[in-house]
Amino acid sequence: MGNSEQLSVQLHAPFWSRYQQLVREVVLPYQYEILNDRVPGVEPSGAIRNFRIAAGLEQGEFTGMVFQDSDVAKWLEAVGYALKTKRDPALERMADDVIDLVVAAQQPDGYLNTYFTIKEPGKRFTNLMDCHELYGAGHMIEAAVSYYEATGKRKLLDAMCRFADLIADTFGPREGQIHGYDGHQEIELALVKLYGATGERRYLDLARYFLDARGTEPNFFLDEWERRGRKSFWWPWLKEPDLAYYQAHKPVREQETAVGHAVRAMYMYTAMADVARLTGDRALQAACERLWQDVTRRQMYVIGAIGSTHQGEAFTFDYDLPNETAYAETCASVGLIFFAKRLIDLGPKAEYGDVMERALYNAVIGSMAQDGKHYCYVNPLEVWPRANEENPDRRHVRPTRQAWFGCACCPPNVARLLMSLQEYIYTWDESRRTLYVHLHMGSTAAWSLDGARVQLRQASALPWRGETSLKVSMPDGPRRFALAVRIPGWCAGKWEVRVNGRELGEEMRVEEGYAVIDRTFADGDELTFAFPLEARWIVGHPQLRAVNGMVAIERGPLVYAVEEADNGPNLAALSVDPGTRLHEVSCEIAGVDAVALECEAWRRDEEAFGDGPLYRPLDAATFSERRVKLRAIPYFLWGNRGQGEMRVWLRSRSSRP
Amino acid sequence: MGNSEQLSVQLHAPFWSRYQQLVREVVLPYQYEILNDRVPGVEPSGAIRNFRIAAGLEQGEFTGMVFQDSDVAKWLEAVGYALKTKRDPALERMADDVIDLVVAAQQPDGYLNTYFTIKEPGKRFTNLMDCHELYGAGHMIEAAVSYYEATGKRKLLDAMCRFADLIADTFGPREGQIHGYDGHQEIELALVKLYGATGERRYLDLARYFLDARGTEPNFFLDEWERRGRKSFWWPWLKEPDLAYYQAHKPVREQETAVGHAVRAMYMYTAMADVARLTGDRALQAACERLWQDVTRRQMYVIGAIGSTHQGEAFTFDYDLPNETAYAETCASVGLIFFAKRLIDLGPKAEYGDVMERALYNAVIGSMAQDGKHYCYVNPLEVWPRANEENPDRRHVRPTRQAWFGCACCPPNVARLLMSLQEYIYTWDESRRTLYVHLHMGSTAAWSLDGARVQLRQASALPWRGETSLKVSMPDGPRRFALAVRIPGWCAGKWEVRVNGRELGEEMRVEEGYAVIDRTFADGDELTFAFPLEARWIVGHPQLRAVNGMVAIERGPLVYAVEEADNGPNLAALSVDPGTRLHEVSCEIAGVDAVALECEAWRRDEEAFGDGPLYRPLDAATFSERRVKLRAIPYFLWGNRGQGEMRVWLRSRSSRP
Repeated sequence: MGNSEQLSVQLHAPFWSRYQQLVREVVLPYQYEILNDRVPGVEPSGAIRNFRIAAGLEQGEFTGMVFQDSDVAKWLEAVGYALKTKRDPALERMADDVIDLVVAAQQPDGYLNTYFTIKEPGKRFTNLMDCHELYGAGHMIEAAVSYYEATGKRKLLDAMCRFADLIADTFGPREGQIHGYDGHQEIELALVKLYGATGERRYLDLARYFLDARGTEPNFFLDEWERRGRKSFWWPWLKEPDLAYYQAHKPVREQETAVGHAVRAMYMYTAMADVARLTGDRALQAACERLWQDVTRRQMYVIGAIGSTHQGEAFTFDYDLPNETAYAETCASVGLIFFAKRLIDLGPKAEYGDVMERALYNAVIGSMAQDGKHYCYVNPLEVWPRANEENPDRRHVRPTRQAWFGCACCPPNVARLLMSLQEYIYTWDESRRTLYVHLHMGSTAAWSLDGARVQLRQASALPWRGETSLKVSMPDGPRRFALAVRIPGWCAGKWEVRVNGRELGEEMRVEEGYAVIDRTFADGDELTFAFPLEARWIVGHPQLRAVNGMVAIERGPLVYAVEEADNGPNLAALSVDPGTRLHEVSCEIAGVDAVALECEAWRRDEEAFGDGPLYRPLDAATFSERRVKLRAIPYFLWGNRGQGEMRVWLRSRSSRP
Repeated sequence: MGNSEQLSVQLHAPFWSRYQQLVREVVLPYQYEILNDRVPGVEPSGAIRNFRIAAGLEQGEFTGMVFQDSDVAKWLEAVGYALKTKRDPALERMADDVIDLVVAAQQPDGYLNTYFTIKEPGKRFTNLMDCHELYGAGHMIEAAVSYYEATGKRKLLDAMCRFADLIADTFGPREGQIHGYDGHQEIELALVKLYGATGERRYLDLARYFLDARGTEPNFFLDEWERRGRKSFWWPWLKEPDLAYYQAHKPVREQETAVGHAVRAMYMYTAMADVARLTGDRALQAACERLWQDVTRRQMYVIGAIGSTHQGEAFTFDYDLPNETAYAETCASVGLIFFAKRLIDLGPKAEYGDVMERALYNAVIGSMAQDGKHYCYVNPLEVWPRANEENPDRRHVRPTRQAWFGCACCPPNVARLLMSLQEYIYTWDESRRTLYVHLHMGSTAAWSLDGARVQLRQASALPWRGETSLKVSMPDGPRRFALAVRIPGWCAGKWEVRVNGRELGEEMRVEEGYAVIDRTFADGDELTFAFPLEARWIVGHPQLRAVNGMVAIERGPLVYAVEEADNGPNLAALSVDPGTRLHEVSCEIAGVDAVALECEAWRRDEEAFGDGPLYRPLDAATFSERRVKLRAIPYFLWGNRGQGEMRVWLRSRSSRP
């Protein structure tokens, strides 16, 4: 693959442009205020102030997490994407000021990290396992590349090249170098981006070094742990590092299942796929594909979220996906989308786009309130506010979106993903003369074919209606090429495509889940796709113990949820018969016009059960039910109507289809 | 009530005598070896050694928990009960030696605690909230009373009176006294026993003082916390004590719901009921009844276990009873039985006996393996061995019984309860001339009525068959009195009773769930009860979110469980139709001849679902099921056939009865 850089893409899907507008007009300014400690009632971030202190512009103590710098970096990266889609002098000035400050905080030798500059000078690179220095470097490199590509300004890019050069001198297999890597992967994928922006092969080599070294014997983290006197930065009671938490338990090419901290895993797999593509490393590619299958076919929640436990923000093991205690961190779903996109770059398969879509339409946009100012760190599959307050095992699941977090990784991660969405829609494969359409999103792609200009204008009514049209502009005359359009997994093979209103014959084939239309296109040609967007009942794999006997609802890419606001409290007392038809009804939630779904359901009757013993023989009184109407709303709109119960999986009263 | 002390009871139920024999012949010797650090492969207890060091007989460091002494005390208490039922010179000599050692470790002023004697001399009574000094005192007082009542030997009793006198001087409302109480309740109920054994009113007054002072303002624990420099003995990161954890958040008479550490709650409620009975304190009695209802009607697992979270080993809130993460500590069920018995002493109601029976036949005996050497601390409602190993949220639930525990409170607690079971069967109410039969257990009760000897010999086929007979011996001639026999809740009103083979007329009435037969009994009269012992499907209250849509199985007092050993792995893939009949079949598990239950069930078919996406539209392929035979065994016998999945609640495929 490759050559996608020749593509120029603009997003204009109403559904998604609204999010980009929200990020541009609300999220980025709001987060800027937070980074500057100017939002009352929100725990001070200190992130900008840390840079001022490190730059010698202010006196004071370091504030926040050891990786606090990365909040600034992710903000800058998102600003870069925002400016790339639309120049905005005020925003650019804001970012230039921040960049001046960041560069002012850089040390003479290129090192940049406010925690170690302010709080532990002299301790740099002594606790890679715990302290996120290269993680921070990676995020600032990503910011530098994004900002450079948007504005052409090299200041941050040059500064980050100097830092990357210092890192390349410090880490590596040669004598005198640290034969190590970071506890939180991120530098690897960032170095690949830096290679892309600069063409400097040494950055790619360094990314590869970090991946190659990871998990080999003797284990770097264990050695470092001994050198450090067996002390954890985070957990004073830790007796021995759990190498799997850092995906450092075995060499990356030998890893079979996704383990440990979910975000680290995703960032690492993303870099692995990048390096596999750029170096033709088949073993690395095979590991990526194996890990992808493990994640998506055995360890992923229906909303496209991952991470089964809050302890270590981690994967547990195959088919262990409890609902009440799910971690399902927003950043992990963002990372899953990164990973999916890199696998597409290695060779498109519709399942990558399916998962990308699942994560995007559910966990990712569900993590942000429609006001752009409230976020989920954990994306619940099930909310019972009282349990989330009073049962400590469920306290990590917040029953409402929060204004900010002490560890504020997620909100800027969502912002940078949403602002760069256009980069996920298409890829151009020069060797196959094929434009791939991975996502159905209103947008325009322009590229050059044998020197001729081609433009594809996509319109899509998703997620509310299943219509996509692709209109070709070829002002320089007809040319033969292929359009490969992902057929979403949710339409179950029932779809139609027409070209200029008539059916397609041999010009069309299906490959890896894509409808490939290979023909000579002329100016004005239009492909129209119709995908039946029917609400349907979903079941999980029989090994998913947590959802056996339950059903979920999907309509197109959207997973649905039921809420107390529509259905009263005690949602577990409801049961549905998945033979029942789901009726579509219009609704408006938090300013979004959406399709809600309604069906008949049954609710257990508490009065008939009475107030005696808690457990009683099943009989007509103890299991009396009454008919009720159930209403489900798109998952991403949950929690916009006050605090209340919510659940994605519903008890099925009849297990037969 | 009262006067039950006039009763002399002997247990001879085959089912229960077997347990007593196991405790006598295996458990007590095994625990003695453990207390003496002589069991290879088991973490050294150090408990006896601590006493040797404190007594100056050995040099060394303190070993174990701050409350390690209590393991010795509970062992001694159980030995007392064992000797009371059957003298055993070897066991008595062993106990006498231990008592000599305990008394040798006592300080000249009566103080006894090896931790503070060895490790923190001078710090006694400075951290009541955390350090269990009065808890330890309470257990040794219980041991002293038990041993004195069994043997008539006063050595430990006198020593503990001296300690109790020191405590009475140290704690109280007067100036110069500590206006405080222990973090772990236990001393209160022990002082009531000491009052019973000695007749010294000051011990009852002290018990009452501890209850009266608890949770009042200014809060003793908060004051102590400040004096101690805001440092927790247990949790260095603790910022503020959670007073509800210690049931010290409000005065005991004002407590409405069960909160905090479940064992502490049970021990406190037990003492509250004792003091209410002995002092006629109506407000205290009302609080007991309120708390009882909250525990048993809103916060109790079906196996008679309590504690919804391992964090704080605690209650959470009403109707929050998750299965996978249940705490359900053995000691808490033992404590629940204590509490039930004390409420019976305040005024019998069948529900107290029902709960006692539920906890005893399920959680309590299920906590000990049939070899007497393996125990549950947490009694699982659901075992999935891999999740219990690899999902940290479920790691507190061990998939098999353990040989011992670092915190070894539970095994000796079970031993002392089982050895004193005979004290829970009957009460004699002199004022009503009524002998209450609370438990259906083969046993003989002897007492004196107007100077005449009366003996009641009970035979019961429980838990396997529903027959109880009660035969009266009255060698001194007929007398009028009443027999009040608890009608178990599980027989749902369908029972019969006959006297000497004929039906009873007006001589019988039902009061508070007891069949009261008030007549002139003559020598040889026999009451025979028949309770239908049918296996039945059980449902939970509709507010129990965790078990909505599920059913459990009970037969008489036994709750049933399904195991991988009989049903293969992935028990969640099974569903049952509660309209299906349960067939009884004989089985033998770990040497116990038991009744297993079988029925038709359905199992989801993994092959039909296939290996593709984890979530798929419900259709004939994704929800293919096949018929299987399901086998359930009594819960108390779970985990005797190798490690595997187990669950109590089964998915119901039809919610209609």
